[in-house]
Amino acid sequence: MPELRKDPVIGRWVIIATERSKRPDDFLHVKIPEKPSPFCPFCEGNEEKTPPEVYAVRRDGTLPDTPGWKVRVVPNKFPALVREGEVRERMEDGYRLMDGVGAHEVIIETPKHDGIIPRLSEEEVGLILDAYRRRYISLKEDERLRYILIFKNHGREAGASLAHPHSQIIATPIVPKRVKEELYGSERFYREKGKCVYCWMIEQELSSKKRVVAETENFIAFCPFASRFPFEVWLLPKYHSAFFEDVKEPDEFASIFKRVITAIHDVLSDPPYNLVLHTSPTMNEHWEHMEKSYHWHMEIMPKLTRVAGFEWGTGFYINPTSPEEAARYLRERCM
Amino acid sequence: MPELRKDPVIGRWVIIATERSKRPDDFLHVKIPEKPSPFCPFCEGNEEKTPPEVYAVRRDGTLPDTPGWKVRVVPNKFPALVREGEVRERMEDGYRLMDGVGAHEVIIETPKHDGIIPRLSEEEVGLILDAYRRRYISLKEDERLRYILIFKNHGREAGASLAHPHSQIIATPIVPKRVKEELYGSERFYREKGKCVYCWMIEQELSSKKRVVAETENFIAFCPFASRFPFEVWLLPKYHSAFFEDVKEPDEFASIFKRVITAIHDVLSDPPYNLVLHTSPTMNEHWEHMEKSYHWHMEIMPKLTRVAGFEWGTGFYINPTSPEEAARYLRERCM
Repeated sequence: MPELRKDPVIGRWVIIATERSKRPDDFLHVKIPEKPSPFCPFCEGNEEKTPPEVYAVRRDGTLPDTPGWKVRVVPNKFPALVREGEVRERMEDGYRLMDGVGAHEVIIETPKHDGIIPRLSEEEVGLILDAYRRRYISLKEDERLRYILIFKNHGREAGASLAHPHSQIIATPIVPKRVKEELYGSERFYREKGKCVYCWMIEQELSSKKRVVAETENFIAFCPFASRFPFEVWLLPKYHSAFFEDVKEPDEFASIFKRVITAIHDVLSDPPYNLVLHTSPTMNEHWEHMEKSYHWHMEIMPKLTRVAGFEWGTGFYINPTSPEEAARYLRERCM
Repeated sequence: MPELRKDPVIGRWVIIATERSKRPDDFLHVKIPEKPSPFCPFCEGNEEKTPPEVYAVRRDGTLPDTPGWKVRVVPNKFPALVREGEVRERMEDGYRLMDGVGAHEVIIETPKHDGIIPRLSEEEVGLILDAYRRRYISLKEDERLRYILIFKNHGREAGASLAHPHSQIIATPIVPKRVKEELYGSERFYREKGKCVYCWMIEQELSSKKRVVAETENFIAFCPFASRFPFEVWLLPKYHSAFFEDVKEPDEFASIFKRVITAIHDVLSDPPYNLVLHTSPTMNEHWEHMEKSYHWHMEIMPKLTRVAGFEWGTGFYINPTSPEEAARYLRERCM
């Protein structure tokens, strides 16, 4: 019997379609081979092909925009939003719009073209996550920006146009709808139950154990009860914290992050995936209980199904793999 | 300068990323060839390979589940939701869920394996749309069902697992989140402005003309101001109507529907696309002003970009083609 399950934060129902139940092997598909790129602008030695770097972890004595870096952050050459301009709503044909002011940066995670996360050391992974945090803190200073989205598309089918491992930051003058829904949902839960809905979820998961993928002293990864996608994993601090930039124990976070990504890579043979960091808006947004009700986390969404068509149009997801089953496969590799 | 544009119904902001502006030719990509299927269960003559038909348009004297049909509707062999069961919420590990009760049907649009909409006559297209309506009316009788989703995935990259032209119906015991957002948004607009937000949009579009793709006496197709996807098109009745099943002038609707789909096919070289019918919930849902505030419509979303990764996670869309430019290309083929 298929099940309809409700996400406790934003109230989204998903179908867990057991009649179409799929195990990891069912998803192994022939990959579209990467086009052998004659030239990669993200590789060491090609620094002049990107806009000038805004941050880098460098060997002592090396100059900006030259070799010798471990992680490098540059503005996107084809930005979705631009730094210059003023945030002001205006009307056109009766509709509301504003200039596309914001920021769009690329975090080049490693100088190695094939340096995907499972092949990096924990220290190297830690540098990537630290770059997320440092750029977050820097962009937050810009008072025009209300939300800073950090995300990663891995694999062409997940939207990565360049194979060289990289993440992206898009900072926007508005708070995205999906983030607002989480803020509303968690605020409602907080008002009703007097606690953070994510803290509550962590309690449920630690108590049932069925969906837990990995755990450390301060962090937990689990497949959410109402997973939209097969092998979807959320990674959260166990302690309450609304702000990613306040992350404690960054080494421990890098360790569990690497383990989870590696488990997904191993169980599903390097699938395409999207990773999105969900954290509080930067400022200028008034959410009375935000510090207490919201809880930062990462959502990792392997892109295995093509049934995603109508989900876009309806917000209604069909997931052919139960999170309990997904967690069992991933846990084996993580523990 | 990129623009941030706000959807007037649900308040979603999208980025129209002019710095990455894309014209139709930029989207022409090498298609993944369809696997030559040795056998198609939807072709005429193979009727016994599907569950027994629940509706068909047949030549006089032909028996159910035999050749001689023009449109044929069957239950999905691998249903996401099943007809049997009772709708009752229960708890598991603290979370809410219910049995996956509902319906999942397949509308086989034509006996011809390669009979895509641009190759069918207006009469044949009319039979498909009429099948939508008839199944809608039939499923609506089931009091457990609150929403009936009609959608079509065309092309493998849009989620179609079989190449033979078909649409799907999924009837659910809950109203999908995205539909609720539209209902809330249009009700809010109605309370504030005393009119239907879709009727208001039609007025804006007819006045500016910039985004209109096609028009008949009773219907209009336009690229919405805050289009999420390149070449996204909405098709609506010009007269106010909350309920698809009440469609007037079905021949006129079939004609403009065929013209719009054909224009998309021609301009973008048969792209993958998703089509979703948005209409009111069936019953048991109390929306005070629904008849007056909601307006049924079809959303047609070509699947041309792969940047969709983080959109899933954030609800934030980046569209590299302005709707004004998309409409100009499509209009040329439609008029």
